[in-house]
Amino acid sequence: MPARNGALPKRAAAAASPQSGGGAEKLAIRGVAIDLYAVPLARVLVDAKHGSHSHFELVTVTITLADGSTGTGYTYTGGKGGHAIAAVLEHDLAEALLGKNGLDVEGVSDFIEWHLHYVGRGGIAAFAASAVDIALWDLAARRAGLPLWELLGGERGDCRVYHGGIDLAFTRDELIGSVTGAVERGFEGVKIKVGLPDLATDADRVRAVRAAIGDDVTFMVDANYAMSVDRAIAAARAFAESGILWFEEPTLPDDYLGFARIADATGVPLAMGENLHTIHEFGYAFDQAKLSYIQPDASNCGGITGWLRVAALAERHGIPVCSHGMHELHVSLVASQRHGGWMEWHSFPIEAWILDPVTLVGGRAVAPTSPGTGVDFDRKRLAPHRIGGASVGTRGV
Amino acid sequence: MPARNGALPKRAAAAASPQSGGGAEKLAIRGVAIDLYAVPLARVLVDAKHGSHSHFELVTVTITLADGSTGTGYTYTGGKGGHAIAAVLEHDLAEALLGKNGLDVEGVSDFIEWHLHYVGRGGIAAFAASAVDIALWDLAARRAGLPLWELLGGERGDCRVYHGGIDLAFTRDELIGSVTGAVERGFEGVKIKVGLPDLATDADRVRAVRAAIGDDVTFMVDANYAMSVDRAIAAARAFAESGILWFEEPTLPDDYLGFARIADATGVPLAMGENLHTIHEFGYAFDQAKLSYIQPDASNCGGITGWLRVAALAERHGIPVCSHGMHELHVSLVASQRHGGWMEWHSFPIEAWILDPVTLVGGRAVAPTSPGTGVDFDRKRLAPHRIGGASVGTRGV
Repeated sequence: MPARNGALPKRAAAAASPQSGGGAEKLAIRGVAIDLYAVPLARVLVDAKHGSHSHFELVTVTITLADGSTGTGYTYTGGKGGHAIAAVLEHDLAEALLGKNGLDVEGVSDFIEWHLHYVGRGGIAAFAASAVDIALWDLAARRAGLPLWELLGGERGDCRVYHGGIDLAFTRDELIGSVTGAVERGFEGVKIKVGLPDLATDADRVRAVRAAIGDDVTFMVDANYAMSVDRAIAAARAFAESGILWFEEPTLPDDYLGFARIADATGVPLAMGENLHTIHEFGYAFDQAKLSYIQPDASNCGGITGWLRVAALAERHGIPVCSHGMHELHVSLVASQRHGGWMEWHSFPIEAWILDPVTLVGGRAVAPTSPGTGVDFDRKRLAPHRIGGASVGTRGV
Repeated sequence: MPARNGALPKRAAAAASPQSGGGAEKLAIRGVAIDLYAVPLARVLVDAKHGSHSHFELVTVTITLADGSTGTGYTYTGGKGGHAIAAVLEHDLAEALLGKNGLDVEGVSDFIEWHLHYVGRGGIAAFAASAVDIALWDLAARRAGLPLWELLGGERGDCRVYHGGIDLAFTRDELIGSVTGAVERGFEGVKIKVGLPDLATDADRVRAVRAAIGDDVTFMVDANYAMSVDRAIAAARAFAESGILWFEEPTLPDDYLGFARIADATGVPLAMGENLHTIHEFGYAFDQAKLSYIQPDASNCGGITGWLRVAALAERHGIPVCSHGMHELHVSLVASQRHGGWMEWHSFPIEAWILDPVTLVGGRAVAPTSPGTGVDFDRKRLAPHRIGGASVGTRGV
């Protein structure tokens, strides 16, 4: 079993530990406020296995300590599970968190794991736990007066970034327009979806994208686990001539040895992570799946604590740690890691609903410099899309 | 990856397939009714890792087809996650099920798996999916006019059964009273909890139970994954002299190779299953954990379809298929299998809330003979404990 020690830099360990910041009473959690939004997308987005996305769900959690300090965390879905995540937060976590030391981030994370274990070990409980964890890290970084990437010991606040399209239903022209548009906006990497019923069409689209973006732009493909191992081997061989950096989720994320067969047969670098939620799953993937890149998503792998544990495992395995989704947060995480890889700029535009959007400078994503995660939601604009929520204890001001 | 074919007997395959029973329009799902109950326990029950249980949650789903036929399924928890399970059913599944062929049990099961995949792969989504699947099997068996065990090709409607105590907080005297009371009620097997902080006390309680029940009663222990691998090896050696049939969940269910180390070091037969939710997890456990018994719970491993898939894998591995929880349903499943093992009579008394409780005859649990699962809830008695629910489409009569 993988060790759980996230090898935090000292500054972060100090900020996110029960000892720091004064008397325990002042640090007790006094309020948990939950908001659930269904945010419409500009157009319906399609991939190979999740069907159509007309909106994304956003669940935010604001935690208030006895001394009035607050932090906000969040998670998101492709449109299903949001009500259940909010229900876990409201009915199974909020009251149980009251009174706990809000700076004991790792302690709270472990408490939640065992508290929800019977209905947990991944799934919806992992999304809920992640939102709480991110709130506590935001709180710790705000109290420390540091942006998250700096609290985590990062030496610079930016990272490589690629544009991740959910474009399987795009016509060929739309696809070319999308990737060239991304390059024009400054992205030095683009990813497209594959996994159409006909492999020849997939391969043709891959070739067309490479021709359109030229040889200098980094290029990845993502099948959303739609292929059998044999099909994925054929596909990897067909895509290889177009110079792809990685082939993401070619087959079921649970099939670690199937991933290894694809890697062994083709030599094409493989990536996954968005569908791994527990440190055990990541451990098996590192040990067995012959991955070249790992893409944990802090919104569903135990928050920032979970993401850092995966990052530590990745470092031990000599694999760059990348990310999936919520780039407005992951920019701070990927930037903080010496072995940080490519961050995905995801097609769910959560960053369009925050007050200080992430910027692209010189092809790199730049993390916020304000204390905390820097993800401050624009609640006024979100308000029309609110479909649920609850508040337990004191609501933060 | 394990094959997904559950190797259903012909009669069940015919009843639970889209072809049978007439025109597709008549078989379309027209209503999904969800009820959530928090049912108090007679006393607070404690195990090594889940803490205290003051009540269990029960989530029922009644599905109505266009022709008016109905079936009821359900799942349960130890007190957390019930609202979230109900939310998945209400917000993510009910409307999506309307119009689907209610006799296409396997098709609906597969639909739900991909529909919920991003927030699924186990966890709360698996509990919700299980309840729907059980409802459709109930419906299929009612339409076939057969009790479930007979529909599944079972040759007899009874099975071996043991009493599963949640008794870690019982005093030694209470523990002895509990197991001898079970033997007096006719149980030929008893299981107790272990995993106290002090191994010597655990071992002493195990010895005391064996002395109290005599040599002829089958005896199991269950640590609810509270031990490290090394501690479990020491514990297995200490318990072995008391003649235990199996040591259940000695360590984390995710640690398949840790289980194998315990089995190799001690020769003590191991069991698990209640915390495995996907066929992939069961596949890894069969391949790596050196189990002697498997205990799938239809309430959280994909319902009856999921349970039968695990049973087929167990048969291929030469392992008896047992069960965890909801004995009022599992009696029909374990009874139906040639390689059926010991069914757990669980300490959450769901059977006390149904109209025709399971009986014990000659030390065996006897399955209902009425068409369907035979699990008909006593809604009048449950009504005061209802804490949530919803209804979409036509509510069954």
